[in-house]
Amino acid sequence: MSGLPTTMTASVLRGVRDVVLEERPVPTCAPDEVLVRVLSVGVCGSDVHYYAHGRIGDYVVDSPLVLGHEVSGRIAAVGSDVDPGRVGQRVAIEPQRPCRVCEFCRSGAYNLCPKMEFYATPPIDGAFCEYVTIQDDFAYEVPDSVSDHAAALMEPLSVGIAAAQKGGIGVGDTVLIAGGGPIGVIAAQVALAYGAVDVVVADIDAGRRELASRYGARVVDPQSESTTDLGAHVFIDASGATAAIVNGIRSVRAGGTVVIVGSADEIPLSVPEIAMREVNVTGTFRYTNTWPIARDLLATGKVELDSLVTHEYGIEQAEQALTGEGATDSLKRVVMPGVRRVEEPAVGVTA
Amino acid sequence: MSGLPTTMTASVLRGVRDVVLEERPVPTCAPDEVLVRVLSVGVCGSDVHYYAHGRIGDYVVDSPLVLGHEVSGRIAAVGSDVDPGRVGQRVAIEPQRPCRVCEFCRSGAYNLCPKMEFYATPPIDGAFCEYVTIQDDFAYEVPDSVSDHAAALMEPLSVGIAAAQKGGIGVGDTVLIAGGGPIGVIAAQVALAYGAVDVVVADIDAGRRELASRYGARVVDPQSESTTDLGAHVFIDASGATAAIVNGIRSVRAGGTVVIVGSADEIPLSVPEIAMREVNVTGTFRYTNTWPIARDLLATGKVELDSLVTHEYGIEQAEQALTGEGATDSLKRVVMPGVRRVEEPAVGVTA
Amino acid sequence: MSGLPTTMTASVLRGVRDVVLEERPVPTCAPDEVLVRVLSVGVCGSDVHYYAHGRIGDYVVDSPLVLGHEVSGRIAAVGSDVDPGRVGQRVAIEPQRPCRVCEFCRSGAYNLCPKMEFYATPPIDGAFCEYVTIQDDFAYEVPDSVSDHAAALMEPLSVGIAAAQKGGIGVGDTVLIAGGGPIGVIAAQVALAYGAVDVVVADIDAGRRELASRYGARVVDPQSESTTDLGAHVFIDASGATAAIVNGIRSVRAGGTVVIVGSADEIPLSVPEIAMREVNVTGTFRYTNTWPIARDLLATGKVELDSLVTHEYGIEQAEQALTGEGATDSLKRVVMPGVRRVEEPAVGVTA
Amino acid sequence: MSGLPTTMTASVLRGVRDVVLEERPVPTCAPDEVLVRVLSVGVCGSDVHYYAHGRIGDYVVDSPLVLGHEVSGRIAAVGSDVDPGRVGQRVAIEPQRPCRVCEFCRSGAYNLCPKMEFYATPPIDGAFCEYVTIQDDFAYEVPDSVSDHAAALMEPLSVGIAAAQKGGIGVGDTVLIAGGGPIGVIAAQVALAYGAVDVVVADIDAGRRELASRYGARVVDPQSESTTDLGAHVFIDASGATAAIVNGIRSVRAGGTVVIVGSADEIPLSVPEIAMREVNVTGTFRYTNTWPIARDLLATGKVELDSLVTHEYGIEQAEQALTGEGATDSLKRVVMPGVRRVEEPAVGVTA
Repeated sequence: MSGLPTTMTASVLRGVRDVVLEERPVPTCAPDEVLVRVLSVGVCGSDVHYYAHGRIGDYVVDSPLVLGHEVSGRIAAVGSDVDPGRVGQRVAIEPQRPCRVCEFCRSGAYNLCPKMEFYATPPIDGAFCEYVTIQDDFAYEVPDSVSDHAAALMEPLSVGIAAAQKGGIGVGDTVLIAGGGPIGVIAAQVALAYGAVDVVVADIDAGRRELASRYGARVVDPQSESTTDLGAHVFIDASGATAAIVNGIRSVRAGGTVVIVGSADEIPLSVPEIAMREVNVTGTFRYTNTWPIARDLLATGKVELDSLVTHEYGIEQAEQALTGEGATDSLKRVVMPGVRRVEEPAVGVTA
Repeated sequence: MSGLPTTMTASVLRGVRDVVLEERPVPTCAPDEVLVRVLSVGVCGSDVHYYAHGRIGDYVVDSPLVLGHEVSGRIAAVGSDVDPGRVGQRVAIEPQRPCRVCEFCRSGAYNLCPKMEFYATPPIDGAFCEYVTIQDDFAYEVPDSVSDHAAALMEPLSVGIAAAQKGGIGVGDTVLIAGGGPIGVIAAQVALAYGAVDVVVADIDAGRRELASRYGARVVDPQSESTTDLGAHVFIDASGATAAIVNGIRSVRAGGTVVIVGSADEIPLSVPEIAMREVNVTGTFRYTNTWPIARDLLATGKVELDSLVTHEYGIEQAEQALTGEGATDSLKRVVMPGVRRVEEPAVGVTA
Repeated sequence: MSGLPTTMTASVLRGVRDVVLEERPVPTCAPDEVLVRVLSVGVCGSDVHYYAHGRIGDYVVDSPLVLGHEVSGRIAAVGSDVDPGRVGQRVAIEPQRPCRVCEFCRSGAYNLCPKMEFYATPPIDGAFCEYVTIQDDFAYEVPDSVSDHAAALMEPLSVGIAAAQKGGIGVGDTVLIAGGGPIGVIAAQVALAYGAVDVVVADIDAGRRELASRYGARVVDPQSESTTDLGAHVFIDASGATAAIVNGIRSVRAGGTVVIVGSADEIPLSVPEIAMREVNVTGTFRYTNTWPIARDLLATGKVELDSLVTHEYGIEQAEQALTGEGATDSLKRVVMPGVRRVEEPAVGVTA
Repeated sequence: MSGLPTTMTASVLRGVRDVVLEERPVPTCAPDEVLVRVLSVGVCGSDVHYYAHGRIGDYVVDSPLVLGHEVSGRIAAVGSDVDPGRVGQRVAIEPQRPCRVCEFCRSGAYNLCPKMEFYATPPIDGAFCEYVTIQDDFAYEVPDSVSDHAAALMEPLSVGIAAAQKGGIGVGDTVLIAGGGPIGVIAAQVALAYGAVDVVVADIDAGRRELASRYGARVVDPQSESTTDLGAHVFIDASGATAAIVNGIRSVRAGGTVVIVGSADEIPLSVPEIAMREVNVTGTFRYTNTWPIARDLLATGKVELDSLVTHEYGIEQAEQALTGEGATDSLKRVVMPGVRRVEEPAVGVTA
C-alpha cells in the first residue's frame, strides 16, 4: 500500500446537528477487503434524519458516526486474498457486510441478516471521508459510461430494483408510485425497465410531478385525481405518507401487491380491503444482489441518474450537504470527499 | 329426471332474524349442471351474520335468501351435457360459479372473478333446502370413507387449504394460528399436513385451547404467553380480533407471511414492523381448486373433520341451527335438509 | 347479421399438396362468439408442414382442412351474449378454444387442456377464408397503431412471450437463441423487452444473422464461434436442430433454463450436463393469456413486427403462400382473404 | 484442545482398489470451524465408484484421498470464533464448504458454487477417519432421538429433500420414483412427508420393491406394469437407468417435472414429449439448507432411516465396507471410525 496517505479527512456526526471534520487514520484492508478512495457520496434522507434527530427508530447515534452510504470510488489497495489487479478500478460500493452464515444469508436473503453491518448505521461508519473499506465482492467495477455520481446512486437505484422485484413487476403491468422524490423517480424508471407499460407517479407537488413526467411516468395530483380505478398490479410507496399508502392499497387490483419503501409509521389497514381482494402488503429493506442489475440498467441507458444530481459539495461542506441550506428544491445532493470545497454547488436542474 | 319431486322445502331468510319454511320448485339443471339432493350443510359464521344483521359489508339481503354454502349431497339428475353415469354419486359441492372468461378466471384465480355467483351470498341462494344445482365440475365425488358431514365441511377445509397455500407453508415451518374455532382447528390440521413441524394455536378460551391441542397443535393463552419469540414462518388469523392480528404480525420472522382469514375490520399496521422485516401481510378470499386436495387430506386421514360436528338439525330447525340456541359451546352445527327434525341435536363433544 | 353474405371463399387443404378454393357458408356465431371478417393471416411453418406432409405427429389431415392460425380481422357480427358494441372492432384472434372446466383450464394452464380445439389443427378449421368465429374473450381489440399484419402476428409474438415467460427471462439476463427465423427474431425482441441485456442469436445463415442484428441481437455463427462460455441464463431453441439444442444446453449457466420452441425430434441429452449443473430443460406449447402483453409490446414499440412481412397474397394465392414459390428468402408470408389476388406479392425486405 | 490425541487413524484410498490405514495428525480448527470426532459414516455409491474406478467424471483420485461424506460425530473442539459451549454436542455434518461470495452463494444456490470444496471429492478428504473439521454452521446439533447412524444419513436424506424441493412436490401429488435403493426409499418417504398422496416406486428387483412398500410406497415392476397412465406430477429418477428415465419422462402429466438424481449418462430425449406437454426435465446436485429440514423429518418421525442400515464396520474394515464383500443384499453399510473392528457386521434386515 505504498503511496497511500496515513491519515484522511472525515466528516463526523457527534450528535444532533453537530458535525466536525476530523483527521483519522486511513483504514487498512482485512484480507478479503478492498480500500476505496471515495469519489462521490449521495446524501440520503436517512443521513439527514440522523443529522437532525440523532436516531432512526432503535438506531441511536451515541458515539461519533460518519454518515453516507451511497458511494462510488476507486480501489486504492486490496487485502491479501484479493486480486491485486483490482487496484485502480472505479467501483460502486454495496455498503453492507452480512455475516454470510446465518439462515438468511445462506438462503440468499442477506438483507435480513440479524448481524448485518451497514454503512452509516450506528455504530458502523459510512463514507463522508476520503477512504473506506468494503469486502471485495461488494465493490463492483463500473464501466466508463457510468459517471462517479451515477455509480454512487446505484445505491438508491438498488432500492428501486428491490421494490420492483418484491412487487413482482412484469411486462404489461400498471404501476402506481406515490412520491416524486429521488426514490419515486428512480422507481418509476425501474418499473419501466421491468416492463411496466403504465407507470403513474402521484405527488401533491407540481414540481415533482413535472420532474417525474420527464422520466417517462404519467403523473397525477392525488388531491384532485383518484387512482382507485387504475387497477394497478403494483403500488410502490416512496412517500412515507399515511394517506398515500392507504390510497395506494385501494388502488391495486385484486391479487395486486403493495410495496412500502418509504419510512412510514403506523397506518390504518382495512382488512377487508386486502383480504377479500387478496392484496399483498409488504415492504423492502435494502436489497440483495442488485448491483449487477443496477449496472446493466445504467449501461444500457434504461435508467438515467445523472440528471438527479442538483448540488455538489466538498468534504468541508458535508454539513451543508446535510442541511440543504441554500439548496431550495434540490433533488439529490452529493458530497465529493476528495474535494475540499465546491464553489458553486448547484450543478443541475432543480425539481 | 323421472322420480324426482316437483317441489321441495327450503328454509328462507326474509330479513333480520326472519326465517320461514317455503315450498319451492325443485330447480332444473342447465346443460352443464347437476342436481344434488342435499345431505348435509354446515352452518358458517357468515350464515349467522346474515341472519343476525341482514348484511355483510356491501352484500345486503334485500330479497329472500336461502343460506348455507358448506354442502354435501347425492346427484339426483344431470344436465344434457353431463355424463348420466354421475347420477347417484355422493358429492361435495364447491359452492361457486365463476364466469370462466375474465382475466382472473383464465389465469387460475377464479376466486377473484368479479362476476362470481356464490351460494348464500345475495342474491344467490344457498343450500338450506332439499335440492340445489351446481356446475358439473364443481361437484366432487367423495369416497365412502368420507362421511356426509365431512364432505360438507370440505368447504371450511378448503378455506384452511387456501390459507396454507397463500402462506406458503412448507416442510419444517413454524405456524402460529390465532383462534381455536372451527377454522383455526382446521387450519392447524392443514398446516401439519403441509409439513409444519410446530403449529401453535393461540386462543383466550381454555376450552378452545384444549380442543386445538387434540388436533396436534401446541396451544398458548395470548393473555399470558408471548408469541413474538416464536419466529413463525407463517401466521394465520382465524380470530378476526385486532389484537390477535397485531400480535401475529409481530410474531412472524423476517420474510414471513401473515394470512388473514377472519373477517376483521380495520387494524393499526406498523409499517416499520413489516417493511424493515419484509413481512408479507395478505388474506384469502375463498379458494380455487382445493376440493381435490381436501378429498385427499380426508381420505388419507391427514385431516379429520367429523369430530368437529357437535349438533345436527333438520330442515325445520334451520333457524335453531343459526341461532345456536341451547347449543352452548357448540363447535359446528349442521343442517340435514332431508330430515324434518332431529330430536336430540347434540351429537358430539363440545368445545 | 343483416348485410352479411351467406357464403364465403375458403382455401381448403384436401390432402398432401392438394389445395382448392371452395364456397362455404359463412359460419354463424354461438351465443358467446364473435364472427370476424379476416384481414390478415400469417403462414406458419406448421401450415407448410400440413400442406407438404398431411400430418404433424399424431395430427392427421384425414378430412378437408382450412389452414391458417395467425389471424387478424374485423368483427362483423356477435353472438347473443356478446356486447353488440363490438361490431366493427378490429381484432387479433387467439386461435384456440379450451374447455374451461378441466384441471388445466381451471388452474390457468389452458394451453394444456386435453380437449383444446385449435385453428388449423385437424379437425378444426383455420382462417384461410373470409370469415371465422371465435369466442368473445379470445378476440382482442387492437389499437390503430397496430397494423393488420402485426395484429395477425401477435400469434407468433405470443409464442415468443410464452418462451420468455417459461424461461423466466428477467432484467439483466443473458439469453441465447438458436435460429434467426421469424420465431427467433421475435423471441430476441421479446427477450430484450423482458429485460435481457445480452441477447445472442446463433444461426448458420449469414442473411438471418444480419436480420437478427437489425432487431437488437448480437449474432454468432455456431459453425465458427462457441457459445459455451456465454453463461446464458436462458437458451431458447427456435431452430429445431439437434446440434443447436445440444449446444444450447451446454451454453446455459448452472441453474439456467432451456426452452425448446422449435419442433425438434429426439436429441441426445447428457444427464450430467443438466443434473450436476441443475439446468432445466423444457418447452412451450402455444401460450396462455399472452395477447394483452403482445398488444402492449406492439403499442409501446418494444416489439416491431411489420418489417417481418416480406410477401402478401390473396385468397386465390393461398397455395402459393404455402409453397413460397418464387419467394426466395421470404421471412413471413401473409394471406389477405378479403383480397382475391395480389399482383406483386413482395412487400418488404427479405432475409 | 487439551485431552485430544495428536494423531488419528484414517482409511486412505491411494488408487483403484488400493486402501490403506494411515496415522495422520488430528486436524486443527480454523477460527470458524469445529473439530468433530466421527461416530458414523455411511458408504455412498460415489465412494464405491471412486474405490473401483479412481474417478467420477472429471474428478480424478490422483493423490491419496479419504472417502466418506455421510457423517455424524461429536464436537471435540472449536475454533476461536465459535461458541465453546458447542464442545460435546452430537452433530450431523453438511460435508461442503462453499466460497460464500460468488453469485451462486450470495443468492442461496451455494450447491452450484464453482469453488465448492466437498468431502471425499478430490482433492478434499472425507470422513473415513477419526476426526474431521467443518465450518461451525455446517455442523448441526441432533436431538437424542436421532441415532448416530440416522444423523449420518441426513446426508442422503438431504438428497431426497433436494429432489422433492426441485420437483415441487406438493400436497395431493402423485410421485413416481425409479429405483428402490437407499435414495429411492428415502425419496419415497420424503415425498410422502411433502404431502404426496400416491408415491409409486418402480424397481425390477422384487426385494427392493418389497422394501419400498414397507416405507409407504406403492410398487410396480416396470418390466410388467406401465406407469404412463399414472399422470404423475413429479418423477424422480434414483436408478440411473436410461430406460427408467425415458419411461419416467413419459409418465409425468403435462406440466409435470422430472428430477434426475441418479448418475446417468446420456439418454435419448424426445423433444415433442417434453415440449408439447411442457414437461420440465432437470436434476439435483447435492443440496442447500436441507439439514434443518432433515432433522425435523427425523425428529417428528416422518422419515425413518435406522432400518436402512444393514451392516456396520470399524475403521480397519473400511475397505470391506466399500467392497460390500460378504454383505449380499446389503442396503446401507456404515463405517464407525471410533471402532477398530466390528465382529459381526450385519445389524439389520437386508433388502
